Amino acid sequence: MPAISGSEYIDRMNRLQTNIWVDGQRVAGKISEHPAFKGVIKTQASLYDLQHDASLKEKMTYPSPLTGKPVGMSYLQPKTKEDLVKRRAMTQEWARKNNGMMGRSPDYMNTVLMAIASSADILKGKENCFPEHLVSFYEYARENDISMTHTFVNPQVNRAQFYFEETEEPIAAKVIEKNEKGIVIKGARLLATQGGITDEIVVISAGGAQDKANGFAFSIPSNSKGLKFIARESFVRGDSSFNYPLSSRYEEMDAIVVFDNVLVPWDRVFFYDNIEVSNRFLFSTGFLPFALHQAVSRQIVKTEFILGVVQSIIESINISEYQHVQEKASEVIIALETMKALVIKSEAEAELDQWGFMRPDQTTLQVASNVFPKVYARFGEIIQQLGASGLMSIPTEQSFQSPIRKDLDQYLQSKSDDAETRVKLFRLAWELSMSAFGTREIQYERYFFGDPIQLASKLYRSYDKDPFVKRVASLLETP
Amino acid sequence: MPAISGSEYIDRMNRLQTNIWVDGQRVAGKISEHPAFKGVIKTQASLYDLQHDASLKEKMTYPSPLTGKPVGMSYLQPKTKEDLVKRRAMTQEWARKNNGMMGRSPDYMNTVLMAIASSADILKGKENCFPEHLVSFYEYARENDISMTHTFVNPQVNRAQFYFEETEEPIAAKVIEKNEKGIVIKGARLLATQGGITDEIVVISAGGAQDKANGFAFSIPSNSKGLKFIARESFVRGDSSFNYPLSSRYEEMDAIVVFDNVLVPWDRVFFYDNIEVSNRFLFSTGFLPFALHQAVSRQIVKTEFILGVVQSIIESINISEYQHVQEKASEVIIALETMKALVIKSEAEAELDQWGFMRPDQTTLQVASNVFPKVYARFGEIIQQLGASGLMSIPTEQSFQSPIRKDLDQYLQSKSDDAETRVKLFRLAWELSMSAFGTREIQYERYFFGDPIQLASKLYRSYDKDPFVKRVASLLETP
Amino acid sequence: MPAISGSEYIDRMNRLQTNIWVDGQRVAGKISEHPAFKGVIKTQASLYDLQHDASLKEKMTYPSPLTGKPVGMSYLQPKTKEDLVKRRAMTQEWARKNNGMMGRSPDYMNTVLMAIASSADILKGKENCFPEHLVSFYEYARENDISMTHTFVNPQVNRAQFYFEETEEPIAAKVIEKNEKGIVIKGARLLATQGGITDEIVVISAGGAQDKANGFAFSIPSNSKGLKFIARESFVRGDSSFNYPLSSRYEEMDAIVVFDNVLVPWDRVFFYDNIEVSNRFLFSTGFLPFALHQAVSRQIVKTEFILGVVQSIIESINISEYQHVQEKASEVIIALETMKALVIKSEAEAELDQWGFMRPDQTTLQVASNVFPKVYARFGEIIQQLGASGLMSIPTEQSFQSPIRKDLDQYLQSKSDDAETRVKLFRLAWELSMSAFGTREIQYERYFFGDPIQLASKLYRSYDKDPFVKRVASLLETP
Amino acid sequence: MPAISGSEYIDRMNRLQTNIWVDGQRVAGKISEHPAFKGVIKTQASLYDLQHDASLKEKMTYPSPLTGKPVGMSYLQPKTKEDLVKRRAMTQEWARKNNGMMGRSPDYMNTVLMAIASSADILKGKENCFPEHLVSFYEYARENDISMTHTFVNPQVNRAQFYFEETEEPIAAKVIEKNEKGIVIKGARLLATQGGITDEIVVISAGGAQDKANGFAFSIPSNSKGLKFIARESFVRGDSSFNYPLSSRYEEMDAIVVFDNVLVPWDRVFFYDNIEVSNRFLFSTGFLPFALHQAVSRQIVKTEFILGVVQSIIESINISEYQHVQEKASEVIIALETMKALVIKSEAEAELDQWGFMRPDQTTLQVASNVFPKVYARFGEIIQQLGASGLMSIPTEQSFQSPIRKDLDQYLQSKSDDAETRVKLFRLAWELSMSAFGTREIQYERYFFGDPIQLASKLYRSYDKDPFVKRVASLLETP
Repeated sequence: MPAISGSEYIDRMNRLQTNIWVDGQRVAGKISEHPAFKGVIKTQASLYDLQHDASLKEKMTYPSPLTGKPVGMSYLQPKTKEDLVKRRAMTQEWARKNNGMMGRSPDYMNTVLMAIASSADILKGKENCFPEHLVSFYEYARENDISMTHTFVNPQVNRAQFYFEETEEPIAAKVIEKNEKGIVIKGARLLATQGGITDEIVVISAGGAQDKANGFAFSIPSNSKGLKFIARESFVRGDSSFNYPLSSRYEEMDAIVVFDNVLVPWDRVFFYDNIEVSNRFLFSTGFLPFALHQAVSRQIVKTEFILGVVQSIIESINISEYQHVQEKASEVIIALETMKALVIKSEAEAELDQWGFMRPDQTTLQVASNVFPKVYARFGEIIQQLGASGLMSIPTEQSFQSPIRKDLDQYLQSKSDDAETRVKLFRLAWELSMSAFGTREIQYERYFFGDPIQLASKLYRSYDKDPFVKRVASLLETP
Repeated sequence: MPAISGSEYIDRMNRLQTNIWVDGQRVAGKISEHPAFKGVIKTQASLYDLQHDASLKEKMTYPSPLTGKPVGMSYLQPKTKEDLVKRRAMTQEWARKNNGMMGRSPDYMNTVLMAIASSADILKGKENCFPEHLVSFYEYARENDISMTHTFVNPQVNRAQFYFEETEEPIAAKVIEKNEKGIVIKGARLLATQGGITDEIVVISAGGAQDKANGFAFSIPSNSKGLKFIARESFVRGDSSFNYPLSSRYEEMDAIVVFDNVLVPWDRVFFYDNIEVSNRFLFSTGFLPFALHQAVSRQIVKTEFILGVVQSIIESINISEYQHVQEKASEVIIALETMKALVIKSEAEAELDQWGFMRPDQTTLQVASNVFPKVYARFGEIIQQLGASGLMSIPTEQSFQSPIRKDLDQYLQSKSDDAETRVKLFRLAWELSMSAFGTREIQYERYFFGDPIQLASKLYRSYDKDPFVKRVASLLETP
Repeated sequence: MPAISGSEYIDRMNRLQTNIWVDGQRVAGKISEHPAFKGVIKTQASLYDLQHDASLKEKMTYPSPLTGKPVGMSYLQPKTKEDLVKRRAMTQEWARKNNGMMGRSPDYMNTVLMAIASSADILKGKENCFPEHLVSFYEYARENDISMTHTFVNPQVNRAQFYFEETEEPIAAKVIEKNEKGIVIKGARLLATQGGITDEIVVISAGGAQDKANGFAFSIPSNSKGLKFIARESFVRGDSSFNYPLSSRYEEMDAIVVFDNVLVPWDRVFFYDNIEVSNRFLFSTGFLPFALHQAVSRQIVKTEFILGVVQSIIESINISEYQHVQEKASEVIIALETMKALVIKSEAEAELDQWGFMRPDQTTLQVASNVFPKVYARFGEIIQQLGASGLMSIPTEQSFQSPIRKDLDQYLQSKSDDAETRVKLFRLAWELSMSAFGTREIQYERYFFGDPIQLASKLYRSYDKDPFVKRVASLLETP
Repeated sequence: MPAISGSEYIDRMNRLQTNIWVDGQRVAGKISEHPAFKGVIKTQASLYDLQHDASLKEKMTYPSPLTGKPVGMSYLQPKTKEDLVKRRAMTQEWARKNNGMMGRSPDYMNTVLMAIASSADILKGKENCFPEHLVSFYEYARENDISMTHTFVNPQVNRAQFYFEETEEPIAAKVIEKNEKGIVIKGARLLATQGGITDEIVVISAGGAQDKANGFAFSIPSNSKGLKFIARESFVRGDSSFNYPLSSRYEEMDAIVVFDNVLVPWDRVFFYDNIEVSNRFLFSTGFLPFALHQAVSRQIVKTEFILGVVQSIIESINISEYQHVQEKASEVIIALETMKALVIKSEAEAELDQWGFMRPDQTTLQVASNVFPKVYARFGEIIQQLGASGLMSIPTEQSFQSPIRKDLDQYLQSKSDDAETRVKLFRLAWELSMSAFGTREIQYERYFFGDPIQLASKLYRSYDKDPFVKRVASLLETP
């Protein structure tokens, strides 16, 4: 089944019966009706539906190289710069549908899988590596429009520089056995966003393993035996899109993933038991340039949304004349145009990799990934500063349906809006910058590609500074 | 009844039957059992109880000048620098009980009332001014340990620099009638924190009125006829102090106050219908130095609490070796010591006002009120940056009481804490910096004494820069 | 004479005998040998010489549309995006020669003149406007490779928002007479960089005039009668390129321009006595996009140079392992890549204007002009922080030629450099960030396109925010 | 000879004939007439003269405990909080005389010597330690009003974390021999401010030595045999106090100190050859609290001066109405009041040390030493931003004495000043924020007490965070 529709996605999720725990209860019944998941599942379904919108078919899909049937554009292995532009257009179409709030819209993982599968040759001929499993899983996912999540991170037990896990029972997930059927995993990994509402979970070592048992890459169905998702507290506070315009639609949820002797069948193992590969694989592939290209494209749309909110507040309470207001709004504009410029540069400077795929310029996108965490956190502050006391006492939808409505209508009107419109706008601004949902988005963007301090160090180390050092030396040598 | 106990406070609140609306419902029954209010009422009661703690009696009360019975120390009209130190000690005792989270603990309004009553003479002999009403209300409040809220702010309809309200029906509360019983108020005012859970509401013009009908000062019982409190959405998400260690205890609530033809009896009118007085009164009194002295004293305790959380995170996940971690923690230390130094300076440089009361140095405290909004917002960011991914997927109390507890115990332990302790700590850190309660605290501190940009302008304008200009001129004139 | 060589430039300057005052003395004799000017004149000459470097001819010149002879590429009226890339390549070639330190290398004014001449039609048919003079001056300049400076700014007497000059004698330059020969100018204008070492001075109102006599545009030879340049203190401290590697080469000098009844002949008057034109002309032309495109291209090269210095310091004293060092260097990298991305975007989004010329996207370049002043000031701080105490006691060239050389050799060596090399590097770092020359560069970049606060306001006002406001409205309206 | 006068200081300096090198030349003749030194020597002399000003005698001196004659107040060993206030008053009196620009006015080193001598007992009974030499040198200095400089820093060869000097010839100064007369030192130390214009140079290990030969403390006359001062380039550009109001008076100069087999006689050796003592001594004494108390007191006066300059610019060009101007000036006010508050707190919380001397609170002063480097660098930026283009083309004194004076008078007048006054003010602003002298002051304050990043780490590590961690634990344990 190529490029699926929303209802197919929903059906699959309900059939999975994944083992998910929310607030001490195992989710039972249809997950698409569970309060914590129904909003995001509905929004995700609406993304898939765009694939079947006749006017968008060209944008959202391309003919499968195997079958000629339309498959999701995010699976496209780009061979030209135009392909990169197509990929960006697709991502931004989906992003506009969720205002960039869903960091794990399906194109993210599709892109990740495409990126690593396109570099599968790296694994060729190496011990305990199965590049053909990776390629065939990519094809399977593409042809069946499989939804995925992933988890790269080990539990945060001790963040000292030199730390070795010494507990008897594993904490970080590791291979504890291999047998004729596959490898057996025990332990946990953190932070699977959308964990439990995707067909599969992809698990890949991101490097840094000191024990080879902690290094592996595979994908398994979310309902695999022994696999458990422990969700954090849900930030959905109700169905009202008046009260919670964002979380009622876009709350993706994060989960801890527990592997309780989970069997990964051999045909789903991409590699294991090879410390060198596990520590180098991910960043040797096209993972970083392609995943960053998707993320930055989405973040641009998110920034546009922020600018829309900022300007709506300015107009609502009529504060555009203030210089400091103009300066704050211009910060958002500068960030938006900077991100747009960086993605354009990454495409303009894209180059073919050794396998003939067109990679956007990684350095340029690394710069974007250093910029966005800072500006996105700042956006929250800007919205708080513009909304000011107006963000402190916003009533709810129910208040507008009660006898006090006439008070609200009179006392909460603003320069350009009636009370209800203005309250809806301020609830949105509040949810974006001050709710548990909104601050989680800030934290999410801040750590999207890792610790910002590490990101800066990596950029520094990988950047070619030599030509400029030489230019200085040449000046100093010239009398 | 002098210095009351917690149970007296609770009884009074339940008897009032104030007209409060939460989420479209009027509060009915005992307010001390209402989910939105029970936590904060209980905490507030515990503050009052400290007045009856034998070991603290000297600290928390002083003998009434009228009756000799113990009355709340926050009512003390200070005549010496030692009196200021006593006032600070009292405020910090109460603040430690709520970790500085309750900006409207009773000492705040008690201090405000003391401050303006101590300057009541300003009103003497002025048209439509009743200094004797103010003084006798102060004495009434002191002798009966009356709890109060207040509201200084008009609705935020239009924040342009030149704006005159032109609607037929009043929006900002105004006097629409006077009769033999008193004055009649119609319209709204914003942002009464603890609105509805205090005996009285004090309403004072903060200046800036263009229509004399908008200028007045009075106090009325919270259950006055026609008076309505429209609460914002409650940020209490449950009773569990494991899940919500702060909001379950300290959520003070903010409300819009609607005056629907509310009669203010003459003996409660402090002034009205005098534009000059209404625009100058508040800032001519000891309001600013005394209210700032209370607030800064509380904010010091709050900063200590932040430092405690910051250091607890550092120890829990063992990150004290990192330079950037040390730098972030040192930011909190620097802020803490700066605030402490400013309050000490304000006391050391206190001076007797014209009525013989000892005012702490206002300029010094204005500096503190410029500093704190910035650093407190920064604290939230620091906690987010130290907690990092650990703040992204924290389970709830219920999870620990379910079959998955053993997973949590294994996978969420940290270097120095077992899983439950660590999760409790991270929930606290999350609630402090990322929950709707926590961000509301940031916004509250940011606007506590007004728009930060205005605060800086005021400080600049009021500061005596002349001696330094002269020093420069003298240097330039010296050959 | 098309594209000139360095010696032709020098000859012209020496022949002009412009009326320039330095430190209370009128410059006499050959200006190319005057201590304050010889370095920059020599460097400027070396730029012109590149036009005659066979390997660069294609890059630096193009065939004159009038004569087919090679004229300077900075005069090119671009008709395609490729033309923009050519213009950028030329600017960056020159910039590398001066490490981006010369904000007024000839391409800047050539570009400005090209830009306004290409929009000369705006003046057509308007009162007191002479578009044909502008076009023919452009052609004259192009065909003769005329060097120019300009001045846009009135004296800074009073910067209050509402200020009208009321002195009897003009302060800001104005037309005080017109006669059959031309218009007569009296008064001053500020800040002609390179004032006195160019063939011509172009004077154009930048808007904001309240008196039509202050509004005009013209160009006259630098040695016009009554024209006087009052230079600021020279920041050249000596000829030694060891001691002063930058100022000995790149000190462009700034001057106040005094018009003492200067006659501007009619054929050099572009417009006068038309308040509307004078307040709108400049920003209606291609001035901003083209001048910004040149400036940003140069600033990129300057940023590369900064990165070279930063990395050279890091290597010299071996501090690359420190995280905060990596972070500071990465700030420079991020700025560099951002500026490069913005110029690429401005070209990718260039559009033909109404006269068929290809304008780079103005908004994108405005963003760059908001970014650079901030980052360039920050660069100075970064260099100071990395150089640290090493910048506090750097000896001079003469010390190395004295008996104490052996002490210096022993005690000032660094990890990777001998003492002399290291001292030269640190002198460069010092001159770049801490000398009068270096701080003037910071101030120059900070105000290059006007007051940074105004730049942010302009960007905000001109940016099209509507699509994003509508997106927000649409979300709020969707149930 | 107790508390000396200015002329006595000058005579001594001229008699010393210290071996100082400036720009490759050894200073010959009277140093008080050397262009690089005459300004600062004259200013320093004027400080000493204040000791003989009858109206200031009480403030500037106290009776010697040995002779009863007046000795400099900076030698006072404080036993009460009032003594600390006296010490501060003395420092600020001197600081006002040099506008806080002289970081090494004599009270600094007098204070350092007093502080370490007051803790000399630490050395008692330890190997190779001579506490009695230290005490008697303190008394000698006090009774003879000896001027001193010092040097704590080793050459900056390699700043990697793990670095051991491996050269054959010493780089960092070390003991290479001991004999019956004393110890012999070879090598260099950095950054003796006022090096060469003081009677003595004090050399003390500041910790961090890995080789015991690098650890010692002593004082020797500046003209000791084999001792050489290599000055950096002088930042005095001329005698004109119109052109250079600061450097012509306050340029203290920094020097590298070379020890070419310098003999330190035994009675001047405080300790040597004891790695533990050398690494702990300085920070075990009262050095930090007392030196910080002096420095912070001076920095307060310097900040007042900055505020004077800032406000003078604001008035001169009439920009006080702008909000961003008010905000920038308020930054200076906030810094000033913060520094004042911290010094008051340090005195209020002073405690007697084990030898009965009253130490100001060290932690509070460490906070100040973390604050000032940041704000002082920011002040430079603020002055640049307020002065704006007015700082770009300022003429010199000579211009006002030339035929172009009438042009300057007309075109450089400002709202409130005539041209000459305004130019003098802007030259001062320029020298303070943009000259080599001004930026050296920024760098000097930035590193006054060490690398700012290390300062933050030290503050973090030494601060007692436990009470606050316990408060958090107690909240978490309370149900």
